[in-house]
Amino acid sequence: MSTITLALDAMGGDRAPRAVLRGVDIARKRYPDVRYLLFGDEVRIAPTLKRLSKLAPLCEVYHTTEAVGSDDKPSHALRRGKETSMRLAIDSVRDGKAAGVVSAGNTGALMAMAKFVLKTVPGIDRPAIAGFFPSTRGESVMLDLGANIESTAENLAQFGVMGAAFARIVLGINKPTVGLLNVGTEELKGPETVKGAAEILRAADLPLEFVGFVEGNDFGPGTVDVFVTNGFTGNIALKTAEGTAKFYAWNLRMAFRRSILARLGYVLARPALLALRERLDPRTYNGALFVGLNGVVIKSHGGTDARGFASAVGVAVDMVKGRFNEHIVEDIHAFSAAPEMPTKAAAS
Amino acid sequence: MSTITLALDAMGGDRAPRAVLRGVDIARKRYPDVRYLLFGDEVRIAPTLKRLSKLAPLCEVYHTTEAVGSDDKPSHALRRGKETSMRLAIDSVRDGKAAGVVSAGNTGALMAMAKFVLKTVPGIDRPAIAGFFPSTRGESVMLDLGANIESTAENLAQFGVMGAAFARIVLGINKPTVGLLNVGTEELKGPETVKGAAEILRAADLPLEFVGFVEGNDFGPGTVDVFVTNGFTGNIALKTAEGTAKFYAWNLRMAFRRSILARLGYVLARPALLALRERLDPRTYNGALFVGLNGVVIKSHGGTDARGFASAVGVAVDMVKGRFNEHIVEDIHAFSAAPEMPTKAAAS
Repeated sequence: MSTITLALDAMGGDRAPRAVLRGVDIARKRYPDVRYLLFGDEVRIAPTLKRLSKLAPLCEVYHTTEAVGSDDKPSHALRRGKETSMRLAIDSVRDGKAAGVVSAGNTGALMAMAKFVLKTVPGIDRPAIAGFFPSTRGESVMLDLGANIESTAENLAQFGVMGAAFARIVLGINKPTVGLLNVGTEELKGPETVKGAAEILRAADLPLEFVGFVEGNDFGPGTVDVFVTNGFTGNIALKTAEGTAKFYAWNLRMAFRRSILARLGYVLARPALLALRERLDPRTYNGALFVGLNGVVIKSHGGTDARGFASAVGVAVDMVKGRFNEHIVEDIHAFSAAPEMPTKAAAS
Repeated sequence: MSTITLALDAMGGDRAPRAVLRGVDIARKRYPDVRYLLFGDEVRIAPTLKRLSKLAPLCEVYHTTEAVGSDDKPSHALRRGKETSMRLAIDSVRDGKAAGVVSAGNTGALMAMAKFVLKTVPGIDRPAIAGFFPSTRGESVMLDLGANIESTAENLAQFGVMGAAFARIVLGINKPTVGLLNVGTEELKGPETVKGAAEILRAADLPLEFVGFVEGNDFGPGTVDVFVTNGFTGNIALKTAEGTAKFYAWNLRMAFRRSILARLGYVLARPALLALRERLDPRTYNGALFVGLNGVVIKSHGGTDARGFASAVGVAVDMVKGRFNEHIVEDIHAFSAAPEMPTKAAAS
């Protein structure tokens, strides 16, 4: 029973199906006990798969010529995409044939379909997108990265619980610290939803340490293990951080070109600088988790290469092995059991 | 009539009054035609001012022993702080004795007092905090950085107009490009307030080019001259960018310590790296503008040194010389004159 089966949307992402298959082949070496259901166009999958001789026996191909386009509207994909590789992969999780699904396809469509097919875990009102990123302390988790545009105090509190479960499993932290992203750390500041979420998290008895409010400059030092915010702000913060890192790297390249000595300095420091690039490579942190659904759903970046897709498969394996959803169900139960919660939440 | 008078809160900021006075002395060299009203404790101001022999004749000291604390609640400062250095400096702008005020003190208190004393410009419902930051293309403006927690579609559209006026004056761009920060660039995505603001800006005939939605990763390349968002998200994006840059710099220091060759490489590249640090130094970009008030109000960072305070004074001088508020009044007039606006705004 230690074998895990994952469903893969072989047609999702800019470089599918090639990057998907080569990514799975990288993951295969790390997780020899995983088998894969590949959903997609057999004609396009077969040539690459044939060349990956050790991977092929671990895969079962489910043929479909339909695929969700990267620009398709989620509502359209949901209505008209019942035979797409993405949808069939999700269906296989609902039918118990696979423990989780990984796709590098259209994020909105994946969320809409996964929500419709798998439904949310009992006690969770809204799913969220969670991801992790590097800090000076190691790694931290952030959610919601964009599943919801707006969130209530209850939604945010539930995101905190799910983010903590994610941190326990992926980062191996027993009692993760959780902070709510706000414009100041003073108790009186911020939107009512954020203040309401703080009240709920402060009062509940959970396997996490709620530390209150954190700010945008807490990402770098990794002040908490789990950063909680709504999907609008979370998406913008994530992309701002990615953009700033790229901007810094661009400036650094310019600096090394300023003089012959600087160029020589670059040559000498090159191995160390390459190690730095490796550490900050977004591909290492690829694999956003859709939390709160009945089934493990991992979104890989659309522009990812094989290495990035392998990271996303790794997150799926961790989530399945770590029994992520069972953790959430237990925690949310403890959480809603607290008698004063409904009133407090309603008042916020 | 080319002489400008600025009011300074000499007691605001972590290193006041010393950093304030030394900062003004740096600004003096760049702007010889500016005179200063210094509000604060004469006993603490006098020793430093005496040593700045060229600055002293340009200053008039208004003595008060009261000052707003960095942790004071804005409401408390507003009610009880009528004799503070910050409040008296703002009052001098209202009374026409100074054209603008610069303070490195408590942001919330400064905004509350400035709003109460100076009131908003006709046609502007809410003031905002605007700042500028470096990009690969040069510099861009962002607002609101935290004056308001929530914003309506009309507020956001007004921020766009004020941000464009700011970009025209400080960055010297004739017809600045303006973008609304959103979670995607597709027209259908995002909160209703953001979509409503897009409708208003698209329909109005203004001295700016509205380009639609932009995302967090557009800050680095400086896709637009003016980034518009609400104060909650703007504050978090700003601090995330600052934090990420610090995190990157930390990683870079670690990389250069990895080996003897890397250390040597650092020594060779040092002048170029110092120039890079200089370019990315937040002090260069110090001086957030409170836009939408009857009077120029500049907030310098609380932890700033003399050089940062000098930048903030420079922004104040630019705003006064550029007749910032007159620009806004004209633009907002054109803006509200558009007959279909009220309906569209109400529908959003």
